[in-house]
Amino acid sequence: MTETKERPAGERPLRAVALGGGHGLQATLGALRRITSDVTAVVTVADDGGSSGRLRRELGLLPPGDLRKALAALADGAGDGLWTRLFEHRFGGTGALAGHAIGNLVLAGLLEVLGDPVAVLAEAARLLGVRGRVLPMCLEPLDIEADVVGLDEDPSAVRRIRGQVAVATTPGRVKRIRVHTTGWPGEPPTACPEAVRAVLDADVVLLGPGSWFTSVLPHLLVPELHEAIVKTSARRVVVLNLVPQPGETAGFSPERHLDVLCEHAPHLRVEAVVADVDSVPTPDRLRRAAEALGARAHLARIAARGAPERHDPDALADCLRRALGAPRGRDGEVGTGTPTSTEWEGGGEQPWR
Amino acid sequence: MTETKERPAGERPLRAVALGGGHGLQATLGALRRITSDVTAVVTVADDGGSSGRLRRELGLLPPGDLRKALAALADGAGDGLWTRLFEHRFGGTGALAGHAIGNLVLAGLLEVLGDPVAVLAEAARLLGVRGRVLPMCLEPLDIEADVVGLDEDPSAVRRIRGQVAVATTPGRVKRIRVHTTGWPGEPPTACPEAVRAVLDADVVLLGPGSWFTSVLPHLLVPELHEAIVKTSARRVVVLNLVPQPGETAGFSPERHLDVLCEHAPHLRVEAVVADVDSVPTPDRLRRAAEALGARAHLARIAARGAPERHDPDALADCLRRALGAPRGRDGEVGTGTPTSTEWEGGGEQPWR
Repeated sequence: MTETKERPAGERPLRAVALGGGHGLQATLGALRRITSDVTAVVTVADDGGSSGRLRRELGLLPPGDLRKALAALADGAGDGLWTRLFEHRFGGTGALAGHAIGNLVLAGLLEVLGDPVAVLAEAARLLGVRGRVLPMCLEPLDIEADVVGLDEDPSAVRRIRGQVAVATTPGRVKRIRVHTTGWPGEPPTACPEAVRAVLDADVVLLGPGSWFTSVLPHLLVPELHEAIVKTSARRVVVLNLVPQPGETAGFSPERHLDVLCEHAPHLRVEAVVADVDSVPTPDRLRRAAEALGARAHLARIAARGAPERHDPDALADCLRRALGAPRGRDGEVGTGTPTSTEWEGGGEQPWR
Repeated sequence: MTETKERPAGERPLRAVALGGGHGLQATLGALRRITSDVTAVVTVADDGGSSGRLRRELGLLPPGDLRKALAALADGAGDGLWTRLFEHRFGGTGALAGHAIGNLVLAGLLEVLGDPVAVLAEAARLLGVRGRVLPMCLEPLDIEADVVGLDEDPSAVRRIRGQVAVATTPGRVKRIRVHTTGWPGEPPTACPEAVRAVLDADVVLLGPGSWFTSVLPHLLVPELHEAIVKTSARRVVVLNLVPQPGETAGFSPERHLDVLCEHAPHLRVEAVVADVDSVPTPDRLRRAAEALGARAHLARIAARGAPERHDPDALADCLRRALGAPRGRDGEVGTGTPTSTEWEGGGEQPWR
C-alpha cells in the first residue's frame, strides 16, 4: 500500500473500504471488485450463531464466518477456485461437524496456530487468491447488547437483549445497541489498527448493506473506528438494504435506517446514500433523511432479477460508479431533489443488464 | 512420471514406494526423502480410531489421518511450512472438535468437494509443497477383521475381532487378518490403480515398519496390490519394528513378524530385511527367517537416540542405502551370515550420527 501513496491518485486504483458483515458485505465487495482492485473489507466480529458461534464458544476465537464470506467474495477464482469452493463447503450429515463450513475450521485452526488475526487473514487470502484485503474490525470477539422495547405488555418497557442472534431476531424494536469485547462488559472495544488505517487512507468508504444493528452499526461503536469513519477524507457511501430484516429492522423504512445511523453517530457525514428504487416507497422522505447526513440519495434498480432480497453486483457497481462520479457534496450541499433513478431511465441506461 | 521412463535409470532419481500407515510410514518416508526425490507413499485406509475414525463414521469417507501423516512426512517445509503446521495442528478444548487434526478436516472437505481421493491428495500435496506423492491403497475405506486366539479359557478358541483399533489392541494373539471394503464383507477390495502402477514402476518397494497386522499386512490383502508387490521388478525391502506393539504383536519376535508375512503372502520374495541391532535378540534366527523370504538381513543402530521406539531418519536412510547398494540376491542367494551391524562397527561408520 505504501508505494501507491507516492503516486498521484489518478495513477493508482481507487482505494475502497467496505464495512459490514455477512451477505450484505459480500454484496458490496462483489460490486467494488468490479470498480477497483484495491478493496479492503472490514468485518464485524460479533456473530454468535451457526458454525461461527459454535467455534467461538468452543475455542474462544474470533467468529470466522463473516471473515470467510468476505474472503470468498474477493477471491479471484484463479485456477478452478478449488480452495474457495472448499472454504464455502459445509459438512453435511447429522454429526458433530454438520453445518461447519470448512473455511471456518481452517480459519479457526490458523487462529490457533498463528494467533494474529491479521496474519491469519493474509495467509488465507493468499491461498484463495484474494484481490484486496480482509480485516476484522477488532482483534477480539465482540458481544452485542441491545435495548429493545415492545417485548412486554408495557410498550415502553426497555429490555436488554444480549447476543448477535438474539438481537437480530428479536420480535421487539431495537432502540440502541452497545458492543464490548467478550468478557469485558462496559469497556469500549479496541479497533484493529490496520482497519483504522485502511479507513483513514481510503478514497471511498462503504457502510452497509446488512443486518443494520448487528453488522453495520457495530463499526460505529468501536471508538477508533468511529473516529476514523467520521474523520477520513474518503467519500462515505451508505448502501441501504433491499428488504427490512425480519426481527431487528422489521417494519423499518429506508429513512429510519439512516436515522438510526445519526442516532449512533451524530457527527457522521455521508456523501451518498444508495438504495434500490423498488425498496423506497417514499423517495422524498429518503432524500430528506439523506440530506440530514449531508448526502445525496442515489436510487437505481440494484436488486438481482428474480431474487429481490439480493443485490445484483453489476447493477450495484454501476450505481456506485455514478454515486462516486457525482460532484462531491460540500458541507450543507446536498442532492438536487431529483431521484437519480430517473437519470438512467431517461438516458436509456440499464444498470441491471 | 512418464518422461523419466525414457531416460536411463542412472539419470533419473531412484523411484521408491513405501507401503504402510501411521508413524511407521512416516519413518520410512522421512528416510527415503533423504535418498531420493521420487517417493510415493501408499497408505492403509482401514483406520477406525481417533479423529480419522470419527470422520469416517460421521461422513463415510476415507479415514484421512494416515494420509495426512504421509503428506506431512513428505512436505518440503518451504516458506515457513505454515500449511503443514496447520494440517498437524489439533483442536484442543473439550468440545465437538477436540482432537481433530485440521488436516483431517481439510482432507475430508476436499473428499466431499472433489470426490476422487487421488485428486484430493494431489491438491493437498501441492498446498503443502510435498516432494513425491501420497496415494491411498484403496479408493474406499476398508474394514479389518482378525482371527484371534487367547481371548477365552480355551486357548485354541478362535474369535473374530473387527476394526483396526480392536485388532491393534487385542490382548489375544492375532492369527490371521482379512480386509474388505466397508459394507461389502466377503468381497475382496479393489486397489487404487495409481498405487498398483507405482509399485510396478518402482526401483525399490518398502514394506513396514508399523502396526504389523493393521498397517503393513493389509497391503498384501488387496489382490491387485498383492500381485504388484510380488511381481514388481523393484527391490523389496522389509523394515522391521523397533519394539513389539502392545496388543497385536505383543511378545512377537522380529522373525515372527517375517513369518507372518510369509503366511499371508507365500509367493512374496524380499531382497532385504532391515532391523535395529538392539531390537534383535537372536540375529541368527532373524537371518534364517529372512532367508526364507530370499532376503539378506541388515542390522544397524537405527533407533533414535533417547527415543528407542522411533526410527532415526538419517540412520535408517544410511542403512537403506547400504541395503540397496548390496549385491542383489538372485533366487536362493541369501545373506552371508555376517550381521551387517559389524560392517559399520568395523569400518568406523556411525550411521546414527
